[in-house]
Amino acid sequence: MKKINLGLIGFGAVGNNVLKLFERNRDSIEQKIGSSIEFSYVCDKNSARLREIKKKVKKVTTDWHRVVKSQSVDIVIELIGGENPARDIIISALKNNKNIVTANKLVLAKNWEEIFSLARKKQKLVYFEAAVGAGIPVVQALNEGLAANRINRIIGILNGTTNYILTKMTREDIDFETALKHAQKQGFAELNPKLDIMGFDTAHKLSILTSIGWSTWLKLENIYVEGIEKIAVEDVKFAYNEFGYVIKLLGIARQIDNKLEIAVRPCLIPKTHPFASVDNEYNAVLLDGDACGEIIFYGKGAGGFPAASAVVSDIMFLARQISAGTAGKIPYVSYEPAKKLSFLSVEQTEGCYYLRFNMADRPGVLSKISGILGKCKVSIASVYQKEPLFKYRRGVPVLMLTHSTNESALKEAIDEIDKLKITKSRTVLFRIEELK
Amino acid sequence: MKKINLGLIGFGAVGNNVLKLFERNRDSIEQKIGSSIEFSYVCDKNSARLREIKKKVKKVTTDWHRVVKSQSVDIVIELIGGENPARDIIISALKNNKNIVTANKLVLAKNWEEIFSLARKKQKLVYFEAAVGAGIPVVQALNEGLAANRINRIIGILNGTTNYILTKMTREDIDFETALKHAQKQGFAELNPKLDIMGFDTAHKLSILTSIGWSTWLKLENIYVEGIEKIAVEDVKFAYNEFGYVIKLLGIARQIDNKLEIAVRPCLIPKTHPFASVDNEYNAVLLDGDACGEIIFYGKGAGGFPAASAVVSDIMFLARQISAGTAGKIPYVSYEPAKKLSFLSVEQTEGCYYLRFNMADRPGVLSKISGILGKCKVSIASVYQKEPLFKYRRGVPVLMLTHSTNESALKEAIDEIDKLKITKSRTVLFRIEELK
Repeated sequence: MKKINLGLIGFGAVGNNVLKLFERNRDSIEQKIGSSIEFSYVCDKNSARLREIKKKVKKVTTDWHRVVKSQSVDIVIELIGGENPARDIIISALKNNKNIVTANKLVLAKNWEEIFSLARKKQKLVYFEAAVGAGIPVVQALNEGLAANRINRIIGILNGTTNYILTKMTREDIDFETALKHAQKQGFAELNPKLDIMGFDTAHKLSILTSIGWSTWLKLENIYVEGIEKIAVEDVKFAYNEFGYVIKLLGIARQIDNKLEIAVRPCLIPKTHPFASVDNEYNAVLLDGDACGEIIFYGKGAGGFPAASAVVSDIMFLARQISAGTAGKIPYVSYEPAKKLSFLSVEQTEGCYYLRFNMADRPGVLSKISGILGKCKVSIASVYQKEPLFKYRRGVPVLMLTHSTNESALKEAIDEIDKLKITKSRTVLFRIEELK
Repeated sequence: MKKINLGLIGFGAVGNNVLKLFERNRDSIEQKIGSSIEFSYVCDKNSARLREIKKKVKKVTTDWHRVVKSQSVDIVIELIGGENPARDIIISALKNNKNIVTANKLVLAKNWEEIFSLARKKQKLVYFEAAVGAGIPVVQALNEGLAANRINRIIGILNGTTNYILTKMTREDIDFETALKHAQKQGFAELNPKLDIMGFDTAHKLSILTSIGWSTWLKLENIYVEGIEKIAVEDVKFAYNEFGYVIKLLGIARQIDNKLEIAVRPCLIPKTHPFASVDNEYNAVLLDGDACGEIIFYGKGAGGFPAASAVVSDIMFLARQISAGTAGKIPYVSYEPAKKLSFLSVEQTEGCYYLRFNMADRPGVLSKISGILGKCKVSIASVYQKEPLFKYRRGVPVLMLTHSTNESALKEAIDEIDKLKITKSRTVLFRIEELK
């Protein structure tokens, strides 16, 4: 039996569970891959972490350079997260002719071209199933199982932290700040949750999925990003009770003629759609291909074991190829550097919207609002105005859903409305995604 | 650019769409695989079908032997369905050192050992994504993306015809026979729908998924199979209106200690579960692994294009490996012939049940039924009895949900109840699957 040597860098929650999963399922794993697995190196900057596992692995080190340069290591597993030194580890490992498994969405989203060009040049593989949706095998599906399709849409609930917070706000009627504190207490949000709540983590994952789906690098700068930090609990309630919608933070990529709309933003989705019951740390991805139609993947998008499921499955697939001498002969990611895409700016997109105006409680308000909307060619589908459900320091809420309209026309109308004296605070706007 | 030569056998709905998909997406397909694709042979026993496409392909024939023996063919694509000659085509193609793509669940379920042993011996690949869930890439997910997991459960809505019929019965309040006629009219049911409605098609697919999940051949004879042909519309209504359940035909495999429960049967599932909104020709599969947790795949489980999505993606993955000279060096399916599994018979399994008794309308009936159930240690969770919603020729319905109970104890109780004089017709029983 051949032996495959692993160099694991980053021994946090995921790294720990990778080792545990190997301990637990070693027999079936080695049976499936036809070779044995050894952890030649485990590396972490925190030497206390290493002390605990010294007996279980061959060598421990705090210096990642030793791992990527080691002659004996076949696969480098990068699990430290963050931008650097993670990027340096991946690049340096490729230069040292290692195959890679990583869970690092940020580094991939920011360095797609460099990493996959180098991997191709070196005939090495970079696997990264855990980078999107943890254990949900959506990366492989896009790369291989659905490869025949022209992708029309990719829409996902891709971030556990924001989804946990929005679930709490929806189901328990609490505001954003309180829900965030809950999430931090439960370990579902980092102490510095900015990357998550401002939508950037979702953008990293959307960049990865779309880069595969459209066979070219979809850079972060092309993605419109809006977070959940300004969502008011009253909008969550109005959307649900009055109109039958749930607010979710969506990553959305949609091909419209020859242009791509690509955005991360909180959207209203119908409460009857499967996405509406994707709660807490669960993720879901909708892939819409020209032959397969709509396919939805659903599962835990966060957590040590779900991520370890993806990391270890990646290791197994690599190990089989290394044993057979075939690893790297076929690139995993289909990447056409020369391919150019055009984009629709968010203002150029069209859709239906939820609007909450905050108006002085006096006659003529509705006529004023609807007059301006009409002038800007925004057509109103529903209006809701009654005694306030929530106490406002000033003004009363007027809710509207629009028919499909151009976002720039809508924003023009809102700008005008927000300047009126009868408008008490800035108008709230959410895109409605029917997901059809 | 290398050229990969295809031999397509069976030019029905799927075969037709495979050719169409190649025509439509040829550029991106060839770009992704780095070689060109040619249809060297298209074979069908119906020569009229061949006449139409003569110009688009190199050669047509009504004799499959010529295809599998052709020196020029790299991949044989078997799309004729049914047992024979499909099995002979696959075996003969492997013997002639061809790689295979097939959509044939029946042949795989019945000949797993022969096909995959021969493939391994010949170092050839047999891909079969389209055999289960059409375009949903669940076969690859089980083989590769989730390979690290010990699988605890596989539960699926796997047959479009029965799901279409049950959806009609649920949503339109029509009986089985009428719904079946609808399905046939809409092209969702064969003229001879026996394989589908009696549950055998679901059993074939469940055999395939479980054979991968447990790395050994799960034979059809080990699967308890019950169809939907005896489902009465009143049970569909009672389940939905009185208890909040939807009836779906499920394929279920569940590891309980060291034994496997494996069955195809109509079950009640909660109407709030994502499976409850899997309607018409859609399929869904729940995979529960020890690391990944519950993962659900959802999409169109039938139709020419969804199946073609899987077939062409399989061809692409094979073509890349053939070009790189790596095809067959790693077996696709992990199959351990020596592995032995023990099974739980359906009587040994435990669960909650829906019961409909049909009783004479007289005092003491409820006490009689509950007495017998109690004696057999079947504990009652809910009872429903009021003026009949449906007109019965004889008797009135008494509905019960049980707490978790052993199925053999329950059947013993029902046998005794069915022999009572006050019992007007055989008791109806459905398993409840909470899918938790």
